[in-house]
This record gives sequence, C-alpha cells and structure tokens, in this order.
Amino acid sequence: MSTLPAIIAVDWGTSSFRLWLMSNDGTVLAEHRSHEGITEVAERGFETVLEKHLSALQVPGTLPVVICGMAGSRQGWVEAGYIDTPADVTTISVNATVVPGVARRVIIIPGLAVRSLTEPDVMRGEETQLLGAHLELPGGERYCMPGTHSKWVSMNGAMVTGFETFMTGELFATISAGTMLVHSTGGEGQVDAQDPAFLTGVRDGWTRPEKTTHHLFSIRAGHLLHDRGIEENRARLSGLLIGAEFAGAGIRGGEQIGLVASGALQRLYHAALSECGVTVRDIDADVAVRRGLVESWQRFSNRSGDLKRT
Amino acid sequence: MSTLPAIIAVDWGTSSFRLWLMSNDGTVLAEHRSHEGITEVAERGFETVLEKHLSALQVPGTLPVVICGMAGSRQGWVEAGYIDTPADVTTISVNATVVPGVARRVIIIPGLAVRSLTEPDVMRGEETQLLGAHLELPGGERYCMPGTHSKWVSMNGAMVTGFETFMTGELFATISAGTMLVHSTGGEGQVDAQDPAFLTGVRDGWTRPEKTTHHLFSIRAGHLLHDRGIEENRARLSGLLIGAEFAGAGIRGGEQIGLVASGALQRLYHAALSECGVTVRDIDADVAVRRGLVESWQRFSNRSGDLKRT
Repeated sequence: MSTLPAIIAVDWGTSSFRLWLMSNDGTVLAEHRSHEGITEVAERGFETVLEKHLSALQVPGTLPVVICGMAGSRQGWVEAGYIDTPADVTTISVNATVVPGVARRVIIIPGLAVRSLTEPDVMRGEETQLLGAHLELPGGERYCMPGTHSKWVSMNGAMVTGFETFMTGELFATISAGTMLVHSTGGEGQVDAQDPAFLTGVRDGWTRPEKTTHHLFSIRAGHLLHDRGIEENRARLSGLLIGAEFAGAGIRGGEQIGLVASGALQRLYHAALSECGVTVRDIDADVAVRRGLVESWQRFSNRSGDLKRT
Repeated sequence: MSTLPAIIAVDWGTSSFRLWLMSNDGTVLAEHRSHEGITEVAERGFETVLEKHLSALQVPGTLPVVICGMAGSRQGWVEAGYIDTPADVTTISVNATVVPGVARRVIIIPGLAVRSLTEPDVMRGEETQLLGAHLELPGGERYCMPGTHSKWVSMNGAMVTGFETFMTGELFATISAGTMLVHSTGGEGQVDAQDPAFLTGVRDGWTRPEKTTHHLFSIRAGHLLHDRGIEENRARLSGLLIGAEFAGAGIRGGEQIGLVASGALQRLYHAALSECGVTVRDIDADVAVRRGLVESWQRFSNRSGDLKRT
C-alpha cells in the first residue's frame, strides 16, 4: 500500500461525470467533476472525454481506469450487463467488462438485477456504492440510497438478497416543474430538512401512502384557499414523496438503516427517517463509491491474477 | 317548455371550450367545440371569443349564457368564488357571478371547496356536472368523475358532504412523457381497457398503493430485462395510477358508484371499477354537464324572480 497514483476511479452517470485519482490505499490524490454525463458524451466519444480529464491531471498511460454507473448501460460506452440477485456484493467486479480497442486498461462494473417477472428491478452504479457502504459499515441489513431513483437494499452479510427502486427524486422534479403544481411549489429551491411542512409531509406519506396523489392536489388547493407559500408547499411535496417511499420500503420504528447519501439529500433523508423512529447510520455516498471502485479494481485484478496462476 | 333556443350553455376549461345552444327542455339545438381554453383566450378576451361562436350560430342577443369551469377562476374571465362543503348541489348556482360590462346576460357558476386546514380541496366545473349527474341518477352516494384531476364525491341526497381530488390524469401524462419512462411507455397512444396489463396494474395499485413509485420504476426494469412492449407498459402505468386512486378513495367490492365520464376514460374506469368488484352506474359526462348548466340557469333565474317578487 502506498500513496502513489494507482487507480483512476470514475462514477459516470446519466448527467454527471466524477473522476478521482486514487492511491491503492484509498487516498484521493486529485478529483475532477463535470456535467459530461453519458447523454452528453455519447456523441463526442467516451474515450475522448476520459482522456481529456486524464491529460489535464497528467496521469500516466499505464494507470488502469475502473468505471461504474450508466457508462455501462446500453446507451453508454460498452454494455456491462447485470448480475442477478442474490449476489455477493464483493464479487460483482470479477465480472467487469474490459473496454475493447482503447490504449489504456479500462473496466466497467456490471449492474445488479432483480429478474422477477412481476417486480423486476435494476441498479447501475449503486452496486459499487453499496460495496463501499458494506465495507464502511459491515453487518448492515438494510441500506437506503436516496436519489433520482432511490434504492432500498436488503443484505445478509455480503449477500444482496434483494432491492427495490422508488422514483422519488425524479417524481419530485417532474411534479414540481411539469404539472400545475409548478404554480404552488416553484420550479426550484432547496427544501429545509427541519421545515415542519416537510416532516408533516413525511408522516402523511408514510402513514397514508394511498392518499399521495390526493395530497399532491391538496397542495394546490391549500395555495388557493389558505394562501400557503411556495416554500412550505415545496417542502410538503418533498416530504409526501419521501414518506410514500418509506411506506413502500416498509420501514418500522426502531429499525436500523444505513443511509448512503451526501449533501442536501443526506440531511432530508436523515431527518425524515429519524421522524419515523428509524435509527440512522450515515455513510457518505462519495466515500462509499470511491471505496467501492478501488475495492472493485483490486478484486478484479486479483481474479485476473488467479486466472493467470491456474 | 319548448324546443326554441333559450339558453347558451358553456363548459369553459383550461384547455377546451364547449358551447351548446339549448332549449329550456334540455334539447341540444347546436354545438361548438374548440381548443380555446382559458389559457389561450386570456389575451384575446373572453367576450370576443364567446361572441364569435354565438354570431356563427346566429344566436339572438337576448339569450342568456351560463358558464361553468375554469372561466370562473382567478386566471379566468371573472372570479366566481367557491361554495364551501357541505353544500346543496341544487342551489350552488343561486350564487352565480354575473359578468359585468357585457351586452348579454352572462353568469358563471361558482366552484366547490373543502376548506379543511389539513386536506383542502377545490373543484370548478365538476360541481355543475355533479348537479346533472344527481338529476340523472338521484340517490347516488358516491360519484367518480375521472379526468386530469379525478374527483370522488360523497353525497347525501342533494348534499355534497365532501370530495377528494386525485392528480391521476395529469400524473399519467407527465410521467409517461416527462420522465425516463418515456422510453418504456411512449409519449402517446390509447390504453385498451381490456388489456390484462391494465387490469393487473389496477389490482396492484389498489391493493398495494404504497408500492406505486416502486412499481413505476419496475416498468422500466421490465422493459430492460424482459423486453416488455410499449403498449403493455403504458397500460400498466395507467392501471397502477388508477388503482392507487381507488385505494385512496377507499372503494370496497360490492359498493355502487356513479361514474360520470365519457369516451376512452369511461371505458377505462368502468373496466377498472368492475375489476375491483364495484357496481358501476354510468352517467355520460356530456349529458350531465349540459343538464347541470340548464338546471343552474333555471335555479338562478328563479331566484332572481323570487328576489323581484319580495
């Protein structure tokens, strides 16, 4: 183990690109972030964008690159497939896809799939975050990974036994900006995790999820009849959707949940879970994904080593 | 009663304009429909648009006009206010607002409001449809009025004791066109009421409404993992949202519900309610709104008569 540059770790999503130059003991030596998500990059070429960042950092051409996220989807760089649950989170990366036809060694981590006929589900990128979270907080049985598409993962040791995705973040964005609620909730603006309207929304969404689409309309009516303000309405909308997610995930008071999140989302979900009596163990999402990427590379290269030895 | 032109009945919504020339026994003598909803008309002037239609029909200037719908909202022609529930559906129109400064006699029917602090609600236009439905089907205790914003109304005789709005139609449009589900559900296209994917969606939404935002994501996963088709996915999305509405409205098998709807929406809701064991009594929404408008005018003018006599 040393703090020399050893691995380039990349989380390449639909709308964002995050790259870390890491030593193999997990130290962050440099970081690059941009909005060059796969949608934008598809035309310019993935290798071009990646090498632009690497040459800015003067990274030697011998360093390997490990990528997670939507870069491994059908619309991404190279399709990296899915591993089916139940799956050992520590061995996902042994099935990583090596990007062909590039000078550098580049691997993309596969996603996870619940191949159920009635309630199929997929994740891509979160499996790597989850590996990091599992290493940060071993023994956790449930992890909540909030976001555009929030993931709730059940684990037994290192085994992912199942997971469910909720469209919470995307619904919040779409409903607040793309329906008549735009007049009552505004198109943008941060929600305060301690706003009573947020916490009441969480409770209402959690205890009466079947009323959610009614409660949404009621926000508009409260604006018309009681002159309720944009900020309060926006907080309630956020709370209602997060509360409905909790109902769907079946959280119970007294339960312990690993919350893999950072920034504003971490504050909102931490406050919301606490409001429902859940014991929250926070795991920083950035730390988790970096740790997951480094571990993934090590597992992958060890496997290659094993293969060579046989 | 005669079949001479007596009343001009107008349902003036956010995105549509419908006008009927009626006799006072309820016969439709002529009809005009256009997309001149209040959003489009606000700039051109409400009177200009109305008179354009009336002169095309060569309607005498003495005929009164009775209007329901969003033309009575703050963004409409003249704000017509709300009557609070509980409210007698047959007397709402005695509080109609007379449009000032126009040559013709024009009245706009007020909306209905649930002025609750926790779950406020409003309707505008549906109160007139409801009056017509009540006259078509006296003794109904619950009415379902599906649409962009579906209304569920509880009645006791002619008294509206309460109602709840669900954002079902708007959510379906926004989610199918404005989220990542657009790739799996398509932006447009009719849903078949007998599609098994629709009816399974209804059952899943009704029995497990807390899973709705998960089931939505699962449509995407089913597209990726099982190659499910656009039509099937779109039907399931529609079913899930309608089923969740039923859960929120608390329908029970064996219950009797008056369904005020027409066209494709009538077919979907009739099939969905039947799937859940509800006995449906169909009331054509167009018939109901026309009957409500004529009755509203008669009640309003009788009251004026009463006032003159006192």
